[in-house]
Amino acid sequence: MAGATTLNHLSTPCLILDERKMNRNIIRLRSHTNKLGVSLRPHLKTAKCVEIAKRLLKDNNGTATVSTLKEAEVFSEAGVKDMIYAVGISPDKLNRVLELRAKGCDLSVLLDSKNQALAIVEASQRSGDPIPGLIEIDSDGHRSGLKGDDPEIAVIGRMLHEGGAELRGVLTHAGESYHAKGAEELAAFAERERAAAVTAAKILRGAALPCPVVSVGSTPTAHFASDLSGVTELRAGVFVFFDLVMAGIGVCMLDDIALSVLTTVIGHQNERGWVIVDAGWMALSSDRGTKDQTIDQGYGIVCDVDGHVLQDLIVTMANQEHGIIALRPGSVAKIPVLPVGTRLRILPNHACATATQFDGYHLLPANSKNQMEYWPRFRGW
Amino acid sequence: MAGATTLNHLSTPCLILDERKMNRNIIRLRSHTNKLGVSLRPHLKTAKCVEIAKRLLKDNNGTATVSTLKEAEVFSEAGVKDMIYAVGISPDKLNRVLELRAKGCDLSVLLDSKNQALAIVEASQRSGDPIPGLIEIDSDGHRSGLKGDDPEIAVIGRMLHEGGAELRGVLTHAGESYHAKGAEELAAFAERERAAAVTAAKILRGAALPCPVVSVGSTPTAHFASDLSGVTELRAGVFVFFDLVMAGIGVCMLDDIALSVLTTVIGHQNERGWVIVDAGWMALSSDRGTKDQTIDQGYGIVCDVDGHVLQDLIVTMANQEHGIIALRPGSVAKIPVLPVGTRLRILPNHACATATQFDGYHLLPANSKNQMEYWPRFRGW
Repeated sequence: MAGATTLNHLSTPCLILDERKMNRNIIRLRSHTNKLGVSLRPHLKTAKCVEIAKRLLKDNNGTATVSTLKEAEVFSEAGVKDMIYAVGISPDKLNRVLELRAKGCDLSVLLDSKNQALAIVEASQRSGDPIPGLIEIDSDGHRSGLKGDDPEIAVIGRMLHEGGAELRGVLTHAGESYHAKGAEELAAFAERERAAAVTAAKILRGAALPCPVVSVGSTPTAHFASDLSGVTELRAGVFVFFDLVMAGIGVCMLDDIALSVLTTVIGHQNERGWVIVDAGWMALSSDRGTKDQTIDQGYGIVCDVDGHVLQDLIVTMANQEHGIIALRPGSVAKIPVLPVGTRLRILPNHACATATQFDGYHLLPANSKNQMEYWPRFRGW
Repeated sequence: MAGATTLNHLSTPCLILDERKMNRNIIRLRSHTNKLGVSLRPHLKTAKCVEIAKRLLKDNNGTATVSTLKEAEVFSEAGVKDMIYAVGISPDKLNRVLELRAKGCDLSVLLDSKNQALAIVEASQRSGDPIPGLIEIDSDGHRSGLKGDDPEIAVIGRMLHEGGAELRGVLTHAGESYHAKGAEELAAFAERERAAAVTAAKILRGAALPCPVVSVGSTPTAHFASDLSGVTELRAGVFVFFDLVMAGIGVCMLDDIALSVLTTVIGHQNERGWVIVDAGWMALSSDRGTKDQTIDQGYGIVCDVDGHVLQDLIVTMANQEHGIIALRPGSVAKIPVLPVGTRLRILPNHACATATQFDGYHLLPANSKNQMEYWPRFRGW
C-alpha cells in the first residue's frame, strides 16, 4: 500500500490523520444537522489546526466554537469571524476579547454569574463595544451553568441587556453524555440538552429579553438528537476524528477513528508477553478515558501500519517514552511476530488529548495518488 | 508579596517555577551524590529547557541523560557534549545519532537485544564512527532490559566490542520504585539497581570485555541509595522539580515542589461545593499518578497565589479547559471564599507530564528583587 510505504519513512512517534475517515465523519454530522434543521457550529478545540478548520467551516457559514482565547486569536487571523469562547469568562480575559472584537471578530463569551455579568458590562461600557454574552445552562450536573429554570437567568440576562453589553442567548453542553451508553441513553441526554436550553430561552423571552441563540451540543448528543425544536445551533468537536471513548459508548465504529499514533517497536520482554514501542504517554497522552467503560482499552488499541486492528493487542502501560503492548486480560490470541523496527499504529482513547501531544498531523491522503501533507497544530492559551 | 503581585498579572493558565525550591532540590541531590562518590548524570526529559540544563550541569562535568533524540539535538546545540539516549534504540534512529556524533556530541545509545546490536554494528561500520552502546539491565521487572545475570549480556557486549561499535557499559532504571513507599523500601530498590548493574558489569569484565560505565538511577532510588560501590554514575530527572507522586512515596515534602500551575477561578456550583477554574487537563495533564497512593490528590493540590496549601482542597475533576476544585472526600474543612477572578496555584501529580503541557516556565525568582523571567521549553521527538 502507498500509505504503508510512506509511513515507514516517518520519524516516530508521530500523529497520522486519515483524510478519508475525517471527511466521512464531517459529512455524517453535517447531513444529520441538515436533517434536524439546525446549524452546526464546530468546536475547534479538538483539531487546533487551520487546515482542518477550513474543512469544517466550508459549508456552515463560518461559525465556530473555541475553548481558549489562543484558539480565537489563531482562527480569527485565519478568517473565522463568528466564534463562541465556550469556557466561563474570567474578568481579566476581557481585554483580549475586546482586542479580537476590535479586529472584526464577532467573539461572544460565556457566563453563569452576576459577577461575570458585571465585569462584561463594565468592559462593554468602557470600550463602547457591547460584548455578546451567552448564559451557560447546566443540563446534566456536569460542571458549570445555571439550571434551565433558574430565575437568575433573567436577572443576569437583564444585566447584560440593559447594561450596555449584548444578550446573545443561552448555551448548554451535556458533558455527562460521555459516560452514557447506547442510542437510547444518548438520545435522552440530547433531549435534556434541548429541554434545558429551550426552558432557559423561554425565561429570557418571558422577561421581554432577547435570546437569538439557543446553542446545545456535544459529540455524543449531536449524533443522537432526533428533534431539536427551539434550538438554533449545535456544537460538537471530537466527531471530526472520533476515538475509543466514542466507540465505547456507541457513537462510532473503530473504523471511523481518523487519528492514530505511528510508533516503532524498540524491544521485547517475551516471558511477560510484552512488546515495547517508542510511544509512551508523551505521545499517547495519559488519558485513560476507556478505563471505566465496558472494555478498557488501556492506552490504546494496536493496529498494523495499514491501520488494521491486531486482535486483542492494546497498550497496557505507558511511561514517558515507552509504551508496553500486550494482549488484553483474558485473551487467548497469539501475539504476532513484531521484530524491533516494526511500525504499528495506536488508536487513541481521547482524540483531543492525544492530538495535543503533537505539533502537527501527517495526512494520509484520501486519494492515494496524492502526496502526504503535514498540517501544523498549535496549542497554548 | 512581590510574587503575588507579579503572578496576578500573568495570563492563565501558566506554569510557575519557584527558583529557590529548584536550587534547593539540585543542591540536595548534588551533595548526596558527592557523599556517595558517584557522578550525577541528570535526566533532562523533565525540564526540556536549556536554562535549567545549565543549572543542572554546572558542576557535573557536563554529562546528561535524554529520552528523545530531539532533546539530544537541542541540548547538543546548547553545548552539552556527553549524553545517553536512555530509551532502547530503533535502527531507523541511528542516522540521527550519527549526525549528532559527527557534530562532536558523544551520544551513546541503549540496547537489550542482538537485533539492536547488529543494527548498531552495521551503522558504526558504515560510518566509520564506533557508536557507544550501553546494555540495558532490568533490575525490577519494570519494562525493558536483560536480567543482571543473563549470559546474553556478554553475547551482545561482544557483538558491539568486536563488530566496530563501542561497548560503553551497562545501565538500569528501577522504575518500579515509583510505587514504593518510605525509606526502607526505597533503599531496597536502590540496592537492587546497584546489584543488578554491578552483576552485569562483572559478566562483561569476566568475558574480557570493557565496561567503563555502570549507570543506575531514578529520582526515588537516587535519594535513598546509601552505598553505590561498583557504580560509576547516577541518573535522576524529576528531582529538580519534585511533585505529588514523589511526596506521596516520601522522597520530598510538599514544600519542596518547585512547579505549579497558576489558574483563575471562573465559576462556582455552590450546592455541590465546587469551585471551577481555567486549568483543566490541558494545563494539568491527565496524569493521575497519586490515584493508587495512600492519599489520592486528584489532579493536584490547591494553593493560594503565594503557594500556601489550602486545607483539603484538590482538583477533583478535569475537563479540557475546566478544573473542578472541591474538598477531598471525608474532609470537614470549609471552602474559603474564592470569587471569580481569584488566582490559585495547583501542585502537580507528575512534574514531567504537567510541564510538557506548557511552552515555558515563568520563573519566580529566588531573589525577590529580581524580575520574573520566562524560560522556554521545547517538546517533540
